[in-house]
Amino acid sequence: MRAVSFERGISKHAEGSCLVKFGDTHVLCTASLEEKVPGWLRNTGKGWVTAEYGMLPRSTGDRMRREAASGKQGGRTLEIQRLIGRSLRSVVDLQALGELQITVDCDVIQADGGTRTAAITGGFVALHDCLSWMQARQMISIEKVLKDHVAAISCGICDGTPVLDLDYAEDSAAETDANFVMTGMGGIVEIQGTAEGAPFSEEEFSALLSLAKQGVQRLVDLQKMAVS
Amino acid sequence: MRAVSFERGISKHAEGSCLVKFGDTHVLCTASLEEKVPGWLRNTGKGWVTAEYGMLPRSTGDRMRREAASGKQGGRTLEIQRLIGRSLRSVVDLQALGELQITVDCDVIQADGGTRTAAITGGFVALHDCLSWMQARQMISIEKVLKDHVAAISCGICDGTPVLDLDYAEDSAAETDANFVMTGMGGIVEIQGTAEGAPFSEEEFSALLSLAKQGVQRLVDLQKMAVS
Amino acid sequence: MRAVSFERGISKHAEGSCLVKFGDTHVLCTASLEEKVPGWLRNTGKGWVTAEYGMLPRSTGDRMRREAASGKQGGRTLEIQRLIGRSLRSVVDLQALGELQITVDCDVIQADGGTRTAAITGGFVALHDCLSWMQARQMISIEKVLKDHVAAISCGICDGTPVLDLDYAEDSAAETDANFVMTGMGGIVEIQGTAEGAPFSEEEFSALLSLAKQGVQRLVDLQKMAVS
Amino acid sequence: MRAVSFERGISKHAEGSCLVKFGDTHVLCTASLEEKVPGWLRNTGKGWVTAEYGMLPRSTGDRMRREAASGKQGGRTLEIQRLIGRSLRSVVDLQALGELQITVDCDVIQADGGTRTAAITGGFVALHDCLSWMQARQMISIEKVLKDHVAAISCGICDGTPVLDLDYAEDSAAETDANFVMTGMGGIVEIQGTAEGAPFSEEEFSALLSLAKQGVQRLVDLQKMAVS
Amino acid sequence: MRAVSFERGISKHAEGSCLVKFGDTHVLCTASLEEKVPGWLRNTGKGWVTAEYGMLPRSTGDRMRREAASGKQGGRTLEIQRLIGRSLRSVVDLQALGELQITVDCDVIQADGGTRTAAITGGFVALHDCLSWMQARQMISIEKVLKDHVAAISCGICDGTPVLDLDYAEDSAAETDANFVMTGMGGIVEIQGTAEGAPFSEEEFSALLSLAKQGVQRLVDLQKMAVS
Amino acid sequence: MRAVSFERGISKHAEGSCLVKFGDTHVLCTASLEEKVPGWLRNTGKGWVTAEYGMLPRSTGDRMRREAASGKQGGRTLEIQRLIGRSLRSVVDLQALGELQITVDCDVIQADGGTRTAAITGGFVALHDCLSWMQARQMISIEKVLKDHVAAISCGICDGTPVLDLDYAEDSAAETDANFVMTGMGGIVEIQGTAEGAPFSEEEFSALLSLAKQGVQRLVDLQKMAVS
Repeated sequence: MRAVSFERGISKHAEGSCLVKFGDTHVLCTASLEEKVPGWLRNTGKGWVTAEYGMLPRSTGDRMRREAASGKQGGRTLEIQRLIGRSLRSVVDLQALGELQITVDCDVIQADGGTRTAAITGGFVALHDCLSWMQARQMISIEKVLKDHVAAISCGICDGTPVLDLDYAEDSAAETDANFVMTGMGGIVEIQGTAEGAPFSEEEFSALLSLAKQGVQRLVDLQKMAVS
Repeated sequence: MRAVSFERGISKHAEGSCLVKFGDTHVLCTASLEEKVPGWLRNTGKGWVTAEYGMLPRSTGDRMRREAASGKQGGRTLEIQRLIGRSLRSVVDLQALGELQITVDCDVIQADGGTRTAAITGGFVALHDCLSWMQARQMISIEKVLKDHVAAISCGICDGTPVLDLDYAEDSAAETDANFVMTGMGGIVEIQGTAEGAPFSEEEFSALLSLAKQGVQRLVDLQKMAVS
Repeated sequence: MRAVSFERGISKHAEGSCLVKFGDTHVLCTASLEEKVPGWLRNTGKGWVTAEYGMLPRSTGDRMRREAASGKQGGRTLEIQRLIGRSLRSVVDLQALGELQITVDCDVIQADGGTRTAAITGGFVALHDCLSWMQARQMISIEKVLKDHVAAISCGICDGTPVLDLDYAEDSAAETDANFVMTGMGGIVEIQGTAEGAPFSEEEFSALLSLAKQGVQRLVDLQKMAVS
Repeated sequence: MRAVSFERGISKHAEGSCLVKFGDTHVLCTASLEEKVPGWLRNTGKGWVTAEYGMLPRSTGDRMRREAASGKQGGRTLEIQRLIGRSLRSVVDLQALGELQITVDCDVIQADGGTRTAAITGGFVALHDCLSWMQARQMISIEKVLKDHVAAISCGICDGTPVLDLDYAEDSAAETDANFVMTGMGGIVEIQGTAEGAPFSEEEFSALLSLAKQGVQRLVDLQKMAVS
Repeated sequence: MRAVSFERGISKHAEGSCLVKFGDTHVLCTASLEEKVPGWLRNTGKGWVTAEYGMLPRSTGDRMRREAASGKQGGRTLEIQRLIGRSLRSVVDLQALGELQITVDCDVIQADGGTRTAAITGGFVALHDCLSWMQARQMISIEKVLKDHVAAISCGICDGTPVLDLDYAEDSAAETDANFVMTGMGGIVEIQGTAEGAPFSEEEFSALLSLAKQGVQRLVDLQKMAVS
Repeated sequence: MRAVSFERGISKHAEGSCLVKFGDTHVLCTASLEEKVPGWLRNTGKGWVTAEYGMLPRSTGDRMRREAASGKQGGRTLEIQRLIGRSLRSVVDLQALGELQITVDCDVIQADGGTRTAAITGGFVALHDCLSWMQARQMISIEKVLKDHVAAISCGICDGTPVLDLDYAEDSAAETDANFVMTGMGGIVEIQGTAEGAPFSEEEFSALLSLAKQGVQRLVDLQKMAVS
């Protein structure tokens, strides 16, 4: 696993923020508290946690077209931000949050593989700090709202060997690529596995899952050190 | 598993077509052969297989807004059509296809859960028939282009019990929901598992995977009967 | 005139539905009841009937681009769905309907000329069945809401001879092409005539109109048999 | 019929231009010559004539939203500009024009009913003057390219009486409303008739057509005076 | 400075209107009164003045693409309409206007340089006449709402010489190009200066500013003659 | 003037990059070299320098809507990125650059007033480093391509006193607000002055310009220290 770090409080404005680094992958996460909720939650007393994801045009080896200029978010972007939102919601008690919305923006400053797993893992820290900010103002009890930690890691099979936390070069070479989102207590929140070339076997998948469990456990330990 | 049927040749125009039914979920799949390929494949001698997905506005219990009218395809739509495309490409030798493109359109006529798995499973039949059409015109050898069967099934845990091929009511009630795409030889192409409520355990996931293997095997048998 | 058939009740979800076939032209029509009305009708006690039209990408000889993917509905689509809506409203008493909206979706599954006339003719059946559904629930009196039948047919002049209900090959070859929408009592609701090549004369137009009257009468008879 | 006037040469830049007035309806028409043709005509030696239509936001009684700001042209706009294009092409020999494109822009400065018929009638004058400009430069022979005159008029039935060239107030009150596009030699190019309230009869329609023939004849006479 | 004229009352519908000409640059300005205000002003008692700008496709030497057809307003359009709005608001007491909105539409009929300065200068006249219309209906006191005149002029340096009110040819040749918006009392509202080629000096800029002051003074005199 | 710093080489991928800080305003600038040029420059031997600008959603006090999600770049964004591009091009010899394009992306990580001036000033450093990168590969001679330094500063009048480099609080309170772009040799590239409240006088404007000259001189000194 690559060196992982969390730099908290890097935004003057956001209620919670974190610059997360998984090696050369750097994602800026901010959590913004707003009083509005989506229409279907109005007057239910329940809140919402959602996420948006973007890549700066030159976060990648070749410059990508700016999504704001092309007039829409691509399928990959929408898929990733839906995943981040679901993952973060899996550890939040929306009833205890109350009728408020927290939007976690994950913007990739520099990409080197694993941007979605870094975004979930760092987004959790930004979310945590936003909830701390709210607790300091007697708006919520963080213990009741935040049920567990959540973190994510990618695994893949390169040259027949399972590898944890793929960088861009490994990711491009991997025959199989999977992302695992898990909680601090070891529960599985989301699994996405894709055969890039040949299909993979159940044994290979089990090896990845077992590797991922160790990886997420370490990420959760690092999160705990970061937020305590 | 619900009753599954494939009605082939239902389009006068398409090179391959299939109306697939998984219970009350009905998806119309057409495979269209075109001479163009995406830009990055031009002059490489390789072809492409891609998919598009849509739901008729009243395929669902409540009428949904028509995506053509709202001016964009939603994130769910993009996510599903990317999945269908990857799944079908996993069993195609793009080099053997030659510099041609096959687009598989999957339009949901009536939805009752499992539209993406029905689309992959029926889309395979449409793709197969398109390749047969091409073979009949000496354009390709279907044996070389189509390496295996591919089919997909959803599984979930409802009230603590693993269930195969969820309909809409079961899907809404499921604590955990996973989609599995596998080949005829049992290789795994894609796994997507999501905890709707509480996170799930490795054991629960294994139970789903094992159930899915049986389900896909049966779907592949039905595909073989349909296309032979 | 080509063989015309109406298959009712083909949607599990819609309040009214009909698969209409004019020869090889197949259009799936659903009528959806909703409690909302357009803004300008709010609090007037009057309802609304509207229509949307679409073609599946491979309903045609060559695959067309999916309108949802291209980000907008084309001019032809908008023109046709406005025509369908006006035609259906011509036989509905919107006051007697009450402040409710019925949307008739007409999706072309397979096209072989005359999709707009098939959509109007089959859309009427779906609308009728939606109103029956409402009457069965004591929401309206169908006699008061539905004032008459409405159906449509195309006519053209091919090689100097007036032809009824043009298929795609005839439509492409026709010098003049007109669509007629008429009621069961023989009133004219809409006429659209276009000279494809040379302008046409008043006599030619009269011949088409007279042919259309017979054609619509037969369609109305078939509608009556279908819904009784 | 309202007072009709054509003011030619009102644009410094356009190859042909005309400000047409039908009473208080004022439409600015410019014809622009370009060397490009649509893709499907490239290397065929044939040219193209097309039209675009727009309304200034305050050309109407209430200010309308600017279509450029709302991000798309509405269905009515697209329908009208397609009609103008077809009408003008009906009198042009595209082969004799050669591989060039003429775009006729019709922008409504002030609207008082009948903007589409004014646009066709004035657009013809702009087109004629563009062709004269080309003939003066030995690019074409106008006699070979322009086969006839074309003009358009609306008719309607108000309080049971057929009325020619409806203004906005008459149009709003009319039970039936039809637009007729005809050539100088009396050929019919396009007929669009719509029952606003109750359906209309064949006799009523004949009365409108006969009125329209006289109206178009007068418009063609005025065009001839204007361009000679 | 080119010949400048204001033709008032050229729109039958608008509360105020003016066709302004700066030489061959012709801009049609209408001022429309509406009862709605932007969301952030609701229930504040304050009104709003805003502007929209557009060019007819063939207002220029080469035909430009219609912004409504391309689906968005370009950066230049947005920049200009924001400038017009700010300029007009600089002389309006929004509190005295009351919770109403005036939209000034500036549509370029023919362009020959200086369209934005003509739009501001003519837009003022349309705005003035809209306010007169309101005063005639006892809605406001024009003296309280309209604090001063506002007009705009461009200046540039061509071949080393400062030139006032550049036409298109001069504008294309100018090394430096600046637009000045000033009030009747000589206050500066907006300055935009751009070096097209080499940077310019403070002295050059002073020369332009001094020229502009004279130009605006003359425009204000012409406005006063026009509206009195 | 606030503390200004340039952190170079902060992107692993970009040919040139710089994180510029003007107090609490932080802008990440990357310069990307591409082999394509805009259509109108193809086969001219000339290159192009362009810029894009964006703000992260929570770079501001309240979260803004993500432009990629809203489907278009706003007028302010387009206006600013056009200004950055013009400013950088003013010191580049496009002929000496050769037929290549450099895109400078300026993404605001945290905003506290003056984002456009920081973007120009930092964008210059990223551009410089991109050109150094090219010189190191014998692609160009930086001396020939880069003619001068360029930097920008805002000034305003707060409570009657001219103030340099406004932060957000000062900017909101300023009666007058102007941005100045100047070269290292003191030439003026761009001036944009706006009266927020009452119009300003020539004397006030002169005071701002004189202050800006000193400010830009200091920024250019800091740029020189940074890149040497």
